[in-house]
Amino acid sequence: MKISMQAMSVELFAYSLGNLSHVLEKGAASAAARKIEPAVLLASRLAPDMLPLTRQVQIACDISKNCVPRLAAKEPRKFEDNEKSFEELRARIARAVDYMQSFQASDFEGAEDRDIKLPAGERTLEFKGLDFLRHWAIPNVYFHITTAYDILRHNGVELGKRDFIAGSRGA
Amino acid sequence: MKISMQAMSVELFAYSLGNLSHVLEKGAASAAARKIEPAVLLASRLAPDMLPLTRQVQIACDISKNCVPRLAAKEPRKFEDNEKSFEELRARIARAVDYMQSFQASDFEGAEDRDIKLPAGERTLEFKGLDFLRHWAIPNVYFHITTAYDILRHNGVELGKRDFIAGSRGA
Repeated sequence: MKISMQAMSVELFAYSLGNLSHVLEKGAASAAARKIEPAVLLASRLAPDMLPLTRQVQIACDISKNCVPRLAAKEPRKFEDNEKSFEELRARIARAVDYMQSFQASDFEGAEDRDIKLPAGERTLEFKGLDFLRHWAIPNVYFHITTAYDILRHNGVELGKRDFIAGSRGA
Repeated sequence: MKISMQAMSVELFAYSLGNLSHVLEKGAASAAARKIEPAVLLASRLAPDMLPLTRQVQIACDISKNCVPRLAAKEPRKFEDNEKSFEELRARIARAVDYMQSFQASDFEGAEDRDIKLPAGERTLEFKGLDFLRHWAIPNVYFHITTAYDILRHNGVELGKRDFIAGSRGA
């Protein structure tokens, strides 16, 4: 095993997004078992001015699948935001993971030192690749994955940290 | 800049725990401004069977400050769980960061491939160092940091994702 920008981006994101997909599967099953309209959970928020579950999942995908091409000096592919069900959100996750995994090890050569410019509203954030990954992308992705989990937990879905950490592996 | 096990553990954790400290400072200020007993926020949870804010912060510190010596093949130092205020929690974070930063670059040589055994209730989890860091410690730390943030947000503390990502730097 060797640490690399690819190992700490593509592989890390793919692993945790896979676990998010598992968490969403449990959310869908809980809605069905409790006769709750899935759209109710998908529109749930932890505070009126926080984003709902659907957006948390979309953004977790976007930050991951945009981070990877930026590290590889490519233009990120755009995804439409049109998911309306747990299944469609899980398909978006699978699509994001496939896309990230389409990059080759050679694409990440020198990625630590690459200059990354990131549009953020009216500002442009500037990073070296390593700081972009560890101080921006990774915290950001986990912010949204965890908040998605917390929304479901807050709404009574039976989940434990093991679902978040290990997904269907249950390890 | 170079990617390394130290850069992706000590430096990543120190950065995000520093931001958590900033988030807690805002929580304390919000409690004071709204005349809410700080202990009320510290005992808040997102679900009856989730851990309260104080425990989320203690555990975020513990996973970070135990991960680092394990990667360095040292015995983790134990911290008592006796914090009763926002200030004491912020002091715990500072103590955890100081402790992690006391390890030297040479301590992390070969850490990617180190065999890590982790007691987890009745089980023992086994990892190589790289997977321990990226598939266990990092997601786990962000789980607790984000849930701490989400608890404060859910309780009306004025916070934005920028506080979580960049702390007092506001970048």
